[in-house]
Amino acid sequence: MVTFLFAVHNHQPVGNFEFVLEKAFRDSYLPFLREAKEHPAFRWTLHFSGPLWEHMVEKERECWDIISELVQERQVELLGGGFYEPILSLIPTEDKLGQVEMMNRFLEENFGTRPRGAWLAERVWEPHLAKPLARAGIEYTLLDEEHFHYAGVKNIHTSHITEEEGFPLRLFPIDKKLRYLIPFRGLEEIRAHFQEIAGQNGTAILGDDGEKFGLWPGTHKWVYEEGWLKAFLSFLEKENIRTATFSEYLDEHPPAGRVYLPPASYEEMMGWVLEPEEHEILESLKGRIPPQAKRFLRGGFFRDFLLKYPESNQLHKRMILVSRELGKKPDNEQARRQLYQAQGNDPYWHGIFGGLYLPHLRGAAYRHLLLAEEKLNLEPGWRELDYDLDGRDEFLRRGQEFNLVIKPSFGGSIVEIDDRTISRNICDVLSRRRESYLVAREDKKDEGRSIHELAKEIPPQAEELLHPDWYPRFSALDHFLHPGTTQDSFRRVDYSELGDFVNQEYNPLLTGDNLVLEREGRVRIGNEAISVRLKKTIRPMGGEIRVAYEIENLSGKDVGLLFGSEWNFSFFPEETEFAESPKVIFLKSVGFQASQPDDFWHFPLQTLSQSEEGYDIIVQGICLLPLWRIALTKGDRFSAEVRIKRINDR
Amino acid sequence: MVTFLFAVHNHQPVGNFEFVLEKAFRDSYLPFLREAKEHPAFRWTLHFSGPLWEHMVEKERECWDIISELVQERQVELLGGGFYEPILSLIPTEDKLGQVEMMNRFLEENFGTRPRGAWLAERVWEPHLAKPLARAGIEYTLLDEEHFHYAGVKNIHTSHITEEEGFPLRLFPIDKKLRYLIPFRGLEEIRAHFQEIAGQNGTAILGDDGEKFGLWPGTHKWVYEEGWLKAFLSFLEKENIRTATFSEYLDEHPPAGRVYLPPASYEEMMGWVLEPEEHEILESLKGRIPPQAKRFLRGGFFRDFLLKYPESNQLHKRMILVSRELGKKPDNEQARRQLYQAQGNDPYWHGIFGGLYLPHLRGAAYRHLLLAEEKLNLEPGWRELDYDLDGRDEFLRRGQEFNLVIKPSFGGSIVEIDDRTISRNICDVLSRRRESYLVAREDKKDEGRSIHELAKEIPPQAEELLHPDWYPRFSALDHFLHPGTTQDSFRRVDYSELGDFVNQEYNPLLTGDNLVLEREGRVRIGNEAISVRLKKTIRPMGGEIRVAYEIENLSGKDVGLLFGSEWNFSFFPEETEFAESPKVIFLKSVGFQASQPDDFWHFPLQTLSQSEEGYDIIVQGICLLPLWRIALTKGDRFSAEVRIKRINDR
Repeated sequence: MVTFLFAVHNHQPVGNFEFVLEKAFRDSYLPFLREAKEHPAFRWTLHFSGPLWEHMVEKERECWDIISELVQERQVELLGGGFYEPILSLIPTEDKLGQVEMMNRFLEENFGTRPRGAWLAERVWEPHLAKPLARAGIEYTLLDEEHFHYAGVKNIHTSHITEEEGFPLRLFPIDKKLRYLIPFRGLEEIRAHFQEIAGQNGTAILGDDGEKFGLWPGTHKWVYEEGWLKAFLSFLEKENIRTATFSEYLDEHPPAGRVYLPPASYEEMMGWVLEPEEHEILESLKGRIPPQAKRFLRGGFFRDFLLKYPESNQLHKRMILVSRELGKKPDNEQARRQLYQAQGNDPYWHGIFGGLYLPHLRGAAYRHLLLAEEKLNLEPGWRELDYDLDGRDEFLRRGQEFNLVIKPSFGGSIVEIDDRTISRNICDVLSRRRESYLVAREDKKDEGRSIHELAKEIPPQAEELLHPDWYPRFSALDHFLHPGTTQDSFRRVDYSELGDFVNQEYNPLLTGDNLVLEREGRVRIGNEAISVRLKKTIRPMGGEIRVAYEIENLSGKDVGLLFGSEWNFSFFPEETEFAESPKVIFLKSVGFQASQPDDFWHFPLQTLSQSEEGYDIIVQGICLLPLWRIALTKGDRFSAEVRIKRINDR
Repeated sequence: MVTFLFAVHNHQPVGNFEFVLEKAFRDSYLPFLREAKEHPAFRWTLHFSGPLWEHMVEKERECWDIISELVQERQVELLGGGFYEPILSLIPTEDKLGQVEMMNRFLEENFGTRPRGAWLAERVWEPHLAKPLARAGIEYTLLDEEHFHYAGVKNIHTSHITEEEGFPLRLFPIDKKLRYLIPFRGLEEIRAHFQEIAGQNGTAILGDDGEKFGLWPGTHKWVYEEGWLKAFLSFLEKENIRTATFSEYLDEHPPAGRVYLPPASYEEMMGWVLEPEEHEILESLKGRIPPQAKRFLRGGFFRDFLLKYPESNQLHKRMILVSRELGKKPDNEQARRQLYQAQGNDPYWHGIFGGLYLPHLRGAAYRHLLLAEEKLNLEPGWRELDYDLDGRDEFLRRGQEFNLVIKPSFGGSIVEIDDRTISRNICDVLSRRRESYLVAREDKKDEGRSIHELAKEIPPQAEELLHPDWYPRFSALDHFLHPGTTQDSFRRVDYSELGDFVNQEYNPLLTGDNLVLEREGRVRIGNEAISVRLKKTIRPMGGEIRVAYEIENLSGKDVGLLFGSEWNFSFFPEETEFAESPKVIFLKSVGFQASQPDDFWHFPLQTLSQSEEGYDIIVQGICLLPLWRIALTKGDRFSAEVRIKRINDR
């Protein structure tokens, strides 16, 4: 007789749409619980992330009551973990402990049970995690079998033990084959696999997303209407398969041995984190390596999502900043809860689900960071520090109405403007990038998951979105364009950049409350490159930010230039209004105005990405580009200004 | 013009022989410094580990004075690091900080300079190390280029930046080719490589062992007598190669970019940590993988040395125990220094140098642990805890004269006896293991290092040492042997074990100050297996330890058994004396006696391992095996006793 350990993990991101949560409960979480309740011999283990518990306690009382009952009857063991489902290795040590302890307290207060195991978000493992988990009272967690293969561990049908600085943690390997069988295959295939495990005197170990049971496309019909789950639970009883909670197993079995696992997650993720070319090299290697050598083949490292997506890095480093501020006022529980919400993993990476691509998830993270800062009542004014850890200083300014983050080393650009009255980073847009699934599509093999079996087609209107941006879509980016450039060609990133200002270094100088950014660069005109000095002065003025431009012709010639100042705002079409005279673009909370531009381009910023349902075109915000046609005699200067002003009352 | 950054790393283990240190200074460290002083334009970076500084301050004043002068003249930058050269990822966080700060203070007090960079012992990197290093005031460290390749970083001729929880650390990749060229090749080859780096607008970065310059076999003649170093330093001047310290470079150049490096060390070590079969699979893969895919090929994980060698794990976990005790009395500076000495990396692993195989290095580590405990004045008595983190409890007893560590789950064996009066773990022996370089030697390719180019031959008398032990050489191991077994066959591990007691589980019971270990096991006799109950009682009695045996025949038959109790002590031939009547073996500090054995085998424990000079046969200690021929009628019991007694005055 084989023992079957089954953990169901249910999660929805902080900031997800209410209707998605409702659908998840209706189609998946609730029917699963109802069915499980009908099979009292089925003992299992259950994880809900914090956002789901908080929703459930208010709005899904039937779920809550069934869980209470199953816990009472010891049919279900509840798993802990970081409350808002952070990637533990991405957050500071104190927050690792705090997030896990927040979940411990929640489960103890509400269900009278302190969790012994933790669900590790996305199973992103690093070897030093054993210590904070153990310190938070956690005895075990679940990892993928891949983690163990990398360490050369042969037996994945049992538990192992690891340690950091002498702090122990039991590790359960999730059987990958079970992950693909359940709930997608018939009972015969599942029986055969159980028998194979039994033949090795092993234990069948599974931990997987609860959304596979009803929320993923097609699964509700299969799992409930066509009765897969009922049949499966009856099958477990009839086949004399012993189900147990992980803790029961823990109390009965010592670990098979000690292991030290390198950083890893499930195999697919270790491909997603790579750049497309690297991903392809990895995939093509996989088939060519003998099975006994596969342990030596590793994909990427989760932290590399912070390199692949600058926007993820900015959010991450911004979060670290807030965490440090909280560290100075550790008793501020309101700020802590806000910070922890901003640490939920979803907007920090991207794989098969939207994640980072979804503006409402990034927006929620920034909102919670700004609310945390609000509660912390931080000192206003300028700070100079390398907040994004690229070895070059940024300038941060906290103000009553707006916060600013400026990056002299990259085009003297503005990377963040926080509109504090609406708790939004209005610069939070995502650039278009090359993604594995968007390049060389014909070569891509199916990754084997049922969800991938769905046919996917890139919609024809998205073809232009395949063209990646060559710089992150910051703001106050200085373009010198070919005079023939059109809004269309600029939007399609199919134009000539004549200057070297967009992504190059500016010298910063703080004078009073103004930040002056200056660069002496080159602009190509015909066959030669002339010297141009560009000075922009950022003046925060209460409810207004003014950016004054001064362009000086340092060459000995008379020249004509087409200069554009690019701004990218995370406002959506329904939040945008245009006024013609004077030309102002009203965004939800601010008006944007430029001093007598010769032209004023604007277009929606869109990205193309994959999600579990196919390809998504997502509006990330709006790009604004006032343009000036400048004739400069030698030594002459040109001035212009851009203003962003709060709309208090319209 | 290329810039050349050169760090020389000098290290000798805690507990190394005085004559080795003297030779190292005479043949290598001193002549290097003298030569460098002659070339004031040569600016470089220098690391000495703590054991060398402590030796130098007393006994190598010329070295000390030259360094003072070079530091004064800003010709040399001194590197910090963990004072006693620990592998940082193996020691607790507080000790990471403490070791680095101890070095900071030492350099500041003696040379008036606080180090900005750290030498990372054996370049064993884990991603979370950036934080403790940065917290200890360290701005940069050096890693191997392999670390960067694994992360897909293309440019290794520059510096990068990483971070943990927002704590930054600059990372310099060590150019592997330079590591092989300097000092082993002629100037033409070196010039060509410098030119190649210059052609890529790169910086030449090298950090390597100072022992290559005079201490490694053959290098003294080459580097000094034949003038390689003088010629090389003149070459740098003549070729207009700019030398600089790492800090100078740091102040002049921002990092090329942010990186996240997975755990790694240099390529060779990531093979050494593997079991021989796995090592071979890895090596054979290396040649078959296309160059652009090599980043995905990884060897082992440094922590796996703790799995490969149980003796390393025991030392490691014992060290963690002492560190925890120190944590309760953090002001005990004497204990701290002892603990830190026990954390020096050398006895925790084995590669091309002796390391773990060297009894004097392991002995020094245990001595410093015991001295640390001495200073901490710990509570005497028994404790039950899983100190070695295998998920099963051990029993530890601290006493006035002896400490004991007993492992019920593994043969009810004694894994440690500390003779406190001489600060020695007298059970500290090393078992014989399969090593890559001992199996399938004919297939092994040269690893390419000059040191490997030396011919190596296994001495013929060592052939029997190729046979590995099938269990770690703990003590109080219970053997039931075939009656025809001889001391020779037992020594050669070429005999039949009839019982299942040696490595199996015993039930422990603490009664008063005695620990009773009991197992009902099986002994094969002819074609059948009979049941036998073995009870051994460990009685600590001040300056004496008694182990009483009771063997009960549970079968319905009369049987004859050959029972042996195996003890392995880390005493060397010159510390051993034999008395015939009564038969006592006097070891340096204790006498070992058994109650009327029918036979009493003893033989030296030897291992075969490689070192930089070839193959070493090392005496690890002595194996003692009193034997009793027992005739037991059914239900009958047999009793015997073993005594280990302090010799106070002989």
